[in-house]
Amino acid sequence: MSSYYNSWEPEGPSVNTEIPGPKAKAAIKELDEVFDTRSLNMLTDYQKSCGNYIADPDGNVLLDVYAQIASIPVGYNNPTLIKAARGDEMINGLINRPALGNFPPKDWADVLKSGILKVAPKGLNQVFTAMAGSDANETAYKAAFMWRRQHERGGSHIEFTEHEMESAMKNQTPGASELSIMSFKTSFHGRLFGSLSTTRSKPIHKLDIPAFDWPQATFPLLKYPLEEHAEENAAAEKAALDEVEHLILNYHAPPCAVVVEPIQSEGGDNHASPEFFRGLRAITRKHNVLLIVDEVQTGVGATGKFWAHEHWGLTDPPDMVTFSKKAQTAGYYFGNPELRPNKPYRQFNTWMGDPARALLFKAIISEVERLDLVNKTAQVGEYLYGKLEGLAKRYPGQFENLRGKGMGTFIAFDNPKRDEFLKTAKKFGVNIGGSGTSAVRLRPMLILEERHADILLEALEGIAKVLA
Amino acid sequence: MSSYYNSWEPEGPSVNTEIPGPKAKAAIKELDEVFDTRSLNMLTDYQKSCGNYIADPDGNVLLDVYAQIASIPVGYNNPTLIKAARGDEMINGLINRPALGNFPPKDWADVLKSGILKVAPKGLNQVFTAMAGSDANETAYKAAFMWRRQHERGGSHIEFTEHEMESAMKNQTPGASELSIMSFKTSFHGRLFGSLSTTRSKPIHKLDIPAFDWPQATFPLLKYPLEEHAEENAAAEKAALDEVEHLILNYHAPPCAVVVEPIQSEGGDNHASPEFFRGLRAITRKHNVLLIVDEVQTGVGATGKFWAHEHWGLTDPPDMVTFSKKAQTAGYYFGNPELRPNKPYRQFNTWMGDPARALLFKAIISEVERLDLVNKTAQVGEYLYGKLEGLAKRYPGQFENLRGKGMGTFIAFDNPKRDEFLKTAKKFGVNIGGSGTSAVRLRPMLILEERHADILLEALEGIAKVLA
Repeated sequence: MSSYYNSWEPEGPSVNTEIPGPKAKAAIKELDEVFDTRSLNMLTDYQKSCGNYIADPDGNVLLDVYAQIASIPVGYNNPTLIKAARGDEMINGLINRPALGNFPPKDWADVLKSGILKVAPKGLNQVFTAMAGSDANETAYKAAFMWRRQHERGGSHIEFTEHEMESAMKNQTPGASELSIMSFKTSFHGRLFGSLSTTRSKPIHKLDIPAFDWPQATFPLLKYPLEEHAEENAAAEKAALDEVEHLILNYHAPPCAVVVEPIQSEGGDNHASPEFFRGLRAITRKHNVLLIVDEVQTGVGATGKFWAHEHWGLTDPPDMVTFSKKAQTAGYYFGNPELRPNKPYRQFNTWMGDPARALLFKAIISEVERLDLVNKTAQVGEYLYGKLEGLAKRYPGQFENLRGKGMGTFIAFDNPKRDEFLKTAKKFGVNIGGSGTSAVRLRPMLILEERHADILLEALEGIAKVLA
Repeated sequence: MSSYYNSWEPEGPSVNTEIPGPKAKAAIKELDEVFDTRSLNMLTDYQKSCGNYIADPDGNVLLDVYAQIASIPVGYNNPTLIKAARGDEMINGLINRPALGNFPPKDWADVLKSGILKVAPKGLNQVFTAMAGSDANETAYKAAFMWRRQHERGGSHIEFTEHEMESAMKNQTPGASELSIMSFKTSFHGRLFGSLSTTRSKPIHKLDIPAFDWPQATFPLLKYPLEEHAEENAAAEKAALDEVEHLILNYHAPPCAVVVEPIQSEGGDNHASPEFFRGLRAITRKHNVLLIVDEVQTGVGATGKFWAHEHWGLTDPPDMVTFSKKAQTAGYYFGNPELRPNKPYRQFNTWMGDPARALLFKAIISEVERLDLVNKTAQVGEYLYGKLEGLAKRYPGQFENLRGKGMGTFIAFDNPKRDEFLKTAKKFGVNIGGSGTSAVRLRPMLILEERHADILLEALEGIAKVLA
């Protein structure tokens, strides 16, 4: 494989102090005066971080397979991105921030077409740009509500009634609709009020925050190994689809859209089969409910396809696909012109994204294409998965429910002492994240190669021995 | 006054074609294929925009007193910002985007203290960083809900009950609270689901989107000139405060916070007196309800103070102050340590802001300080307001309800043909925005000088003659 990254990466991890070490501890204490540090994982020296390696102020360097919660696509201090960041175009985007809906830059069509839209999912040729995953999902939801109400009114030419306008100003029906967005149990779609109403990951994410009375369907939590539970899993998926249809037909606040992650990521790396997702597309289409695919964590190559939903073999595309994280910008794709609201200023805000971040995504896309990183991720993922199967056999109970076969490096397993597992990993020179209650989730960058996978595997084996 | 900006600004506006001209029209047509252009005001050539002047692809150059909906603080292509954008620190922040809550940069405390927190409102020494105005407000609201529920439970040491945790996952009480955020009629606080529930600007912003059943109080819409309606206005403010107190005590979903703009900006540039705001602070304090001041549009100098609420002479500071726009980043300030939730990961998201944008704000602050731009804005505003009073006398009906005296350049007036007024302005070489139904709002940058004000005034007189 390519040794392009050899030139700017260290040979391997090096751990010299406990983490946090003395320098980090002093800096964290200072930071905590002004910024809540209780969720701090590792104070980071980004200047010294490089490729697949994350550094800290005490000189520790770890192989990073968490990558800023799956947000770093092509490595720390990637030379191609440095070059893009130094360019006049980027500087212009950074210092002259436009209100994109009112005053778009003269070359905005080109920035979109040669960047964000160059990788648009099949069937989706338009984009609404946003700032992060939560508002990407919420603007998609808003588009869904407006679309559905327009259908109910009888078309885009029907004007709003006085009663609708007055009641909307009072947050009451019919102006404020009583429709809903359906999501799945154990899903994660963001943390603002609308997105949090669809998030069903953990109580700590939701407690005390007012929520909309929207429906949730059961996600078909599969049993592993898949080949030993084929019948049971198929039945679980069938039951889940039946529940979706039942809720569409009977829930008191009718859903105008279903939002789903291709792999439930924060919720514990829960997968479902392509058949399940094809069934979900069929049911939503049948009942005129939109399908929003939340690719905030799965998108941009990590599953061995640019978009994870490409694994499903859909003939009828999703209505909207949301993105963020590895794109370093955010928004949602759509194809149906009816998803542009019937009047301007209904879907609008001051910034509507960030041109600097859109330009960075363009640079990321060209780096991914130049180095064929999606295909390489598929290959490295296959290698890594095979080796993990071996580890799972040698260390029973330590790599339970291994999952993500054929999904690039988007791999996870359960460990009964998960939090200790993650903590111990740092001593072995690896930065790893968790998800759900017991999953260890691998979220390496797209530049992970077999030699990095070998370093990771050696560390995982070391951890397993310690915890055994 | 300083002629620092002479070196990089044109002499004055130049209008060569209708706007949009032929080049803009062609580019807009292309853009519309992939991006909704119905809210487009002016396709912009940001490379050629300079200081107070905005350029378009047809070579037209306008004095810009709209400034990307009040978002450009120190001029297009400001040399100081270019220098900051070219620096290694900024490039690092741009290409190595951290998950700030988990992996903050080692110097994050310094970036905050020497930037965002250097200008923190009095009494507020902590910050939660966000991406834009809507999520700045929504995270502040979340903090308010968690704070209030903690008080109701009896303290931060009280654990959540099983029933709370289970019901939260179902979006039901008691886990999902039935508290509310109170806002004012004609207010604007953002467009996501929680913030939109507090926004009461126009039906077009709210129609079809589900909303929380939260209370709204009447904003004391003052009559002008103020000196002729002193008694009436005082009575309106008294009535508004009485309504606030009544709603706090009686609304079926008790408010845990009141959110208010120092000047209602999108809603039509509605002002209230310092006495009103001091009264609001007193009432909220009395009833243990938080006061959130939304300085998204008023903040960062335009009113002749760094924060508009400094005009109120509060002895007891607001609980939270939100910011965005001219800060080029976003978030909320707070002082009370109880506004940090009792456990980590309750107020959290992947990015929690953007270090590149935080560094840009730091550069903006140092430019504002170096050139004393807040005081200069106060002076230029006084000059401009005086001249506008003269215009209002000479052109009766054209500059109605002139308002913003003593509030820097944050000035507005009503015109019966407002939309035509704004359109005609471009022919006179000026880019101006509106707000509410009939207001012309001036939102120049902080680098507007008397000579720019003179150009603006000449244009305004020209428009008034055309429309008379």
